[in-house]
Amino acid sequence: MQMELEFIQQLIEPAETKIVLLVMDGLGGLPVEKGGPTELEAANTPNLDRLAAEGICGLHQPIGPGITPGSGPAHQALFGYDPIKYQVGRGALSALGIDFDLQPQDMAARGNYCSLDDQGNVSDRRAGRISSEKNRELSELLRQIDLPGVEVFVQTVKEYRILLVLRGEGLSGEISATDPQETGVPPLEPRALSKEAAKTAGLVAEFIQQARKILADHHPANMVLLRGFSMRPDWPQMADVFGLRSAAIAAYPMYRGVAKLVGMQALPTGDSLDEEFSMLEKRWNDFDYFFLHVKKTDSYGEDGDFNHKVALIEEVDRQVPRLLDLKPDVLMVTGDHSTPSLMKYHGFQPVPVLLWSQFCRPDNVEMFGERACMTGGLGPRLPAVDLMPIALANAGRLKKFGA
Amino acid sequence: MQMELEFIQQLIEPAETKIVLLVMDGLGGLPVEKGGPTELEAANTPNLDRLAAEGICGLHQPIGPGITPGSGPAHQALFGYDPIKYQVGRGALSALGIDFDLQPQDMAARGNYCSLDDQGNVSDRRAGRISSEKNRELSELLRQIDLPGVEVFVQTVKEYRILLVLRGEGLSGEISATDPQETGVPPLEPRALSKEAAKTAGLVAEFIQQARKILADHHPANMVLLRGFSMRPDWPQMADVFGLRSAAIAAYPMYRGVAKLVGMQALPTGDSLDEEFSMLEKRWNDFDYFFLHVKKTDSYGEDGDFNHKVALIEEVDRQVPRLLDLKPDVLMVTGDHSTPSLMKYHGFQPVPVLLWSQFCRPDNVEMFGERACMTGGLGPRLPAVDLMPIALANAGRLKKFGA
Repeated sequence: MQMELEFIQQLIEPAETKIVLLVMDGLGGLPVEKGGPTELEAANTPNLDRLAAEGICGLHQPIGPGITPGSGPAHQALFGYDPIKYQVGRGALSALGIDFDLQPQDMAARGNYCSLDDQGNVSDRRAGRISSEKNRELSELLRQIDLPGVEVFVQTVKEYRILLVLRGEGLSGEISATDPQETGVPPLEPRALSKEAAKTAGLVAEFIQQARKILADHHPANMVLLRGFSMRPDWPQMADVFGLRSAAIAAYPMYRGVAKLVGMQALPTGDSLDEEFSMLEKRWNDFDYFFLHVKKTDSYGEDGDFNHKVALIEEVDRQVPRLLDLKPDVLMVTGDHSTPSLMKYHGFQPVPVLLWSQFCRPDNVEMFGERACMTGGLGPRLPAVDLMPIALANAGRLKKFGA
Repeated sequence: MQMELEFIQQLIEPAETKIVLLVMDGLGGLPVEKGGPTELEAANTPNLDRLAAEGICGLHQPIGPGITPGSGPAHQALFGYDPIKYQVGRGALSALGIDFDLQPQDMAARGNYCSLDDQGNVSDRRAGRISSEKNRELSELLRQIDLPGVEVFVQTVKEYRILLVLRGEGLSGEISATDPQETGVPPLEPRALSKEAAKTAGLVAEFIQQARKILADHHPANMVLLRGFSMRPDWPQMADVFGLRSAAIAAYPMYRGVAKLVGMQALPTGDSLDEEFSMLEKRWNDFDYFFLHVKKTDSYGEDGDFNHKVALIEEVDRQVPRLLDLKPDVLMVTGDHSTPSLMKYHGFQPVPVLLWSQFCRPDNVEMFGERACMTGGLGPRLPAVDLMPIALANAGRLKKFGA
């Protein structure tokens, strides 16, 4: 019964209602001792508990049973885009991660500076892990490369890693990697994996040739290896499929990037909660849907820092009244995935979610926490992609199917 | 993990068991005040509560997450037919709504009487909302239209609305509407949307031409507009896919119509509960599966009449012992969708369901109500199409899959 976006699209009807999706990254947790509380259960969250009591709760499964989500696909799911159907290539993902403003005709690839020996074999795939500063110098040089009919962008990611973007007509991401993934062998030639990719493969080969000349005297970084060639995904946009003017308030590039792929406007914000909630207040009248992203719950989870994760959840709880003062019609609070401090890593476990609106069917859940949510009306394993149609319904934005 | 009808069909085995599906239309509700009961929770239902305690409960999702169901597709789902896969065209639906006995080769369309001005442009798409009586007079005239090789039916629906049915070999519903959906322009020509539809498009054009002549002096209703051309759906029949001799006891045409589409025999009944339950008793020995439909729970919900909806649920509860006296093997009690008095409209919220049989796995639910059902063994969001295979299994009508 998975519903395609096209199915939902035909049921959309206009409304003057507002939906807020508040995501605490990596919200889901685990007890660190048997019978103990999770981070969310340990947190003192009177505002979220009240919303849980008045709303409908559950746990959502971001990608599928047992699947540990990356933050990109997990957010896609929350936005209503099936992350298995709508996939982002590695190059494009890398572009999102450094806030590079990918355009529809852009082809992106991940690159490494590497070392070649006198025989032209790869001796170090990471060029001795050169500094980001050195990377910036070299990338400046590579930007001189001139290819016929396309614009060339070479962006520093970090240390030895770069992003290559070609911008022009008729490009393709169906190119084989030049990174041999081992040393003692020469870099591979870029090959077109489809007829349509022949032109792009030629351009990439030309780029590599020129890069090799330019970098010849810059050992250990005397060559680049490329992989993850991919076009910017061309997905249905939220305005078209859901009829929503949507905005993202997220301090980290990757989240803004995924939001932009579905057509959200990324609003400028600092990374404090106060800055994020202030931006929400400031732009409240301009959009129908707001995605508000809190990053550090995940960071503390990855650090194994149970107490700071608890404290940050409590800090978010204290901001909730500001949000309620805006009178959203539908408010969802959840995480994109679990990041239990116990695991110091993204977890596969379902993620607590509460949905609050005038028309949600209240359940018996009285507090916002993993165990409590398991008995809620959204169920203990709601596919995350189902949250968007449910939110739309609660916002009066879906008409009846059939008579 | 959705199962196709073909998959279920191959597992069917014969049995001497009886299944009853008792549907209270629009059963699901909402509290009208925070923390208050829903209609079903407010109702005093000792018999249904006992069945809930002995049986297995849950909430079902008629179409999909967040989707507000029409009664037609919602019933299809309860009968085991995926309503997104098996769709009924608007014309055919209109035929079901007035109890027109659609045959497999029938092509049905919705029609409006309309007004044309002297230039032949549509000046009123609803012909000044003529009376049903006037409609009947004019439709009588249109029935004189003679088309080669097909029978023509023109049925009054209500006010300016009619149903056109052509009956004959090789018809198609792939015809574009003649209703321009605006005034100041002429009616559109019916166009064939596929090669197979050419013949039907010709017949429709001929019908319209003759109708125009016949109606010429009947301004404001001096023309008809047609749309929603569709064949009667040709679906697998319950006898074939489920091995069930099935009967519908429903007072309203639309429900009998949908039941007939899946192969049920529609038994004659008045619209009182007593008449419906009496018909059930009378024909108990003749069928394996009974669908019993109570309409007015929905009507009261649409009226926003919480108290009458409660009272009607209680009235149904009082009939339950009559039903149990018949000793059904499997009894399901549910709604086709929610119609909360609070919303005065069909709701997207999942619908309480109880299933009672000797072999169901009892849960901890002790009463039949929305909050109680959320924690039941059928789960808080069971896809409605799954109820039929579960009922068949409880009735010993499905054999083992694999060795």
